[in-house]
Amino acid sequence: MRKSPFLPNKPLTVAILGSSGAVGCELLKILDERNFPISNLILLSSSRSAGKKVFWKGNEIITKEVVANSFSGVDLVFASAGGAISKKWVESIKKHNAILIDNSSAFRMSEHVPLVVPEVNPEAVLGHQGIIANPNCTTILLALVLSPLNCISNIKRVIVSTYQSASGAGQLAMDELKFLTKKYLEGDPQKSQILPHSLAFNLFLHNSPMLENKYCEEEMKMINESRKILNIPNLKLSATCVRVPILRSHSEAVNIEFENKIYTNEAIDKLKESRGITFIEDINSNRFPMPEDVKEKDNIAVGRVREDLSNPNALELWLCGDQIRKGAALNAVQIAEILLQKNHDLK
Amino acid sequence: MRKSPFLPNKPLTVAILGSSGAVGCELLKILDERNFPISNLILLSSSRSAGKKVFWKGNEIITKEVVANSFSGVDLVFASAGGAISKKWVESIKKHNAILIDNSSAFRMSEHVPLVVPEVNPEAVLGHQGIIANPNCTTILLALVLSPLNCISNIKRVIVSTYQSASGAGQLAMDELKFLTKKYLEGDPQKSQILPHSLAFNLFLHNSPMLENKYCEEEMKMINESRKILNIPNLKLSATCVRVPILRSHSEAVNIEFENKIYTNEAIDKLKESRGITFIEDINSNRFPMPEDVKEKDNIAVGRVREDLSNPNALELWLCGDQIRKGAALNAVQIAEILLQKNHDLK
Repeated sequence: MRKSPFLPNKPLTVAILGSSGAVGCELLKILDERNFPISNLILLSSSRSAGKKVFWKGNEIITKEVVANSFSGVDLVFASAGGAISKKWVESIKKHNAILIDNSSAFRMSEHVPLVVPEVNPEAVLGHQGIIANPNCTTILLALVLSPLNCISNIKRVIVSTYQSASGAGQLAMDELKFLTKKYLEGDPQKSQILPHSLAFNLFLHNSPMLENKYCEEEMKMINESRKILNIPNLKLSATCVRVPILRSHSEAVNIEFENKIYTNEAIDKLKESRGITFIEDINSNRFPMPEDVKEKDNIAVGRVREDLSNPNALELWLCGDQIRKGAALNAVQIAEILLQKNHDLK
Repeated sequence: MRKSPFLPNKPLTVAILGSSGAVGCELLKILDERNFPISNLILLSSSRSAGKKVFWKGNEIITKEVVANSFSGVDLVFASAGGAISKKWVESIKKHNAILIDNSSAFRMSEHVPLVVPEVNPEAVLGHQGIIANPNCTTILLALVLSPLNCISNIKRVIVSTYQSASGAGQLAMDELKFLTKKYLEGDPQKSQILPHSLAFNLFLHNSPMLENKYCEEEMKMINESRKILNIPNLKLSATCVRVPILRSHSEAVNIEFENKIYTNEAIDKLKESRGITFIEDINSNRFPMPEDVKEKDNIAVGRVREDLSNPNALELWLCGDQIRKGAALNAVQIAEILLQKNHDLK
C-alpha cells in the first residue's frame, strides 16, 4: 500500500506501455516538450514491436517486450495499449509500487480510480490508489466546456453530436484513411481493413460495440465518464458519435440545457477565462473552430456560443480538440504533473 | 391569372434554368429516368455557359442564353441557378404562364408559394399561383422523418446536427474537395477558392451568412422551412449545420422530443411504412446508414432509432440522403409530377 499519493521528488523512471501507437508517440513528444523529470525512460510493447529504436532527447531507446518484471524500479507507467493490456499488467505495476496512468477504458468507472481532466477535477488525482484513469477523448473535450458552465447554472441536459477523426482508432486508421482516399481519387476504391467501412469521403456512426439500448460504447462512455468527472451522478446526457474523414481532431456540436437562463455573453466570458480553452468566434467573417485549428495544439477551441432558439434556458456551442493530444496524451501528462510534489510545494 | 393548377395534359415544353450545375445535370437524368412527358426541352443558362451541348434521350440540345422571351410557349420551368437568377426571371416566367418550380430560397417563405416535400405535403402543390418552391436539402431530408413521427405524437422540440457534403455548394465545391484532398495527400496543401476553407480532411460550420442570433442562414432555413412544410408554425427546432468532406450526401443526427412517449418500435414501424425512406438498422453488425448507401438513390436512409437516455419522451435517430437527388432534383421532379393531370385522373 503506498503511503503518499505523490511521485518521488527526484528524476523519475517512467515506463510507456504501448509507445509505438499514435498516443504513445505523442506522449514521448509531450514529455520532452514539458520537460517532465525523467531519468530513465523505458518503452514497453508487445513482442511484435519489441526491438524498435526510438530517439528521445537525443538518446536512442530500444523498445522492450513487456514482462512481469518490466515494472521493477518504475515510478510511473503511462499505458496506451488498450484495456486488455492494461488489465493484464496492472497487478505487476501495483506490485512494484508504480503509479499507472491508464489511457484505456479498463478502470475508468472503477470506484477507487480517479477519472481526471486536470482543468476540471485535479483534486481527484490525489485520492488514487495506484491507478488514475485518463478519460475517453470525446469526454475530455466535452468536460472542458461543461465544467465552467455548470458553475454558472446547474446543467440539466446535454445533447451532443460528435465528428470524430480516424486517430481515435489509432495510427493504422489514420494511415488507412489516407490510403483509401488516394485510391478513391484514383478511381480504384478499396475496402477498409482497419475500420469497418471506408472513411474515404464517407462517414459512419461510431463502430464501438452496440448496447441493448442502441447506444454504442463510445456514447455510453461520454455519459458515464462525464457524470464521474463532473461529479453530477444524474447528469442527463445523450450522444451520437460519428466517425468522419478527418485525421486527428474531434469536433462536437453541443446543446446544453441549464436550470436557469444563462446569457450568451456570460457563458462566453466564463469559457474565455477557463483553462484549456481557446475561444474562436469571429461572427463577421463566419470564422469558428475547425479541426485544422487545433491540430497539435494543447487547448481545445470553442466558439459559436448562442442561445438555443428552441429553449431559452439552453445554449448551443461548437468545439474542436486534438484527439491525440488533449484527448489523450497531453491529458495523461497533465495528470502526472499533479503527482509531482514540487508542483505542490510551489503552491 | 392561371385557371387550373395543373400542367396541360400533353407532352410539355420544359425549360431548365441553370442546367449545367450539379442539380441541373441530375434533373436531366431524373426527367429521363422517370419518363417525364416532355416534347421540347429547353436548356437555359447565363451567356457564359450558353452554347454548351448536352445529350438528352439521344438528342443534342444546345444551351441557350436566358432572355426575357425564353419562356414563350414554355409550360414548366425548373430553376436551379440561385435566388438572384430566379428573382430576375420570375416575372417573365409568370407572364408566359409557365409554372416555376424553384430550387432557390428566393420564394420559399412567400405566403402564396407552396413549399413542398411530396411525401409530406403534396396537397399544398395545387394551391400554387405559378410558383412552387423546392425546400432546402437538409430540410427535405429532415421533414421526411418528422412528418410521419408527428402523426404518432406531436413534436415538441427538435435538435439536429448536420454532416453536409460539398455538393450543397455545387459541382465546383465537389471538384475542389477532390483537388484539395489530392494536393494534401501529395504533401502540397493548398488554399480553397470555392468554399471559404479547405474541406480536405477538415470540416467547418456552414458558411452561409450569419444572423444576429448567431444562427447561419442554412440553420434558419431548417427552422423556418420545416415549420411551413409540416404546418407547425411554432415548431421548436435548433440546428447546427456543418460541412464535412463528403461528396454528395448529407447526414443528420436528430433528437426529437414528443408530447407523449413514443416507443422505439412504434417509431420504427411508422418510418418503415413511410414513403421515401429506406430503413437501415442492423444492430448485431453495427450497420446503420452511411452517405455511400444513399449516393444516387431516391430514398433517404434512416436508422439507429433509439430512446433518448436523457429524456423519456424523446427519440434519437440518424439519417442520410443524397443531397443532389432527393435533397434537390428528385424532389423538384416529384413536385412536377403532382401537376400532371393524368396522375390525378388515375386516382
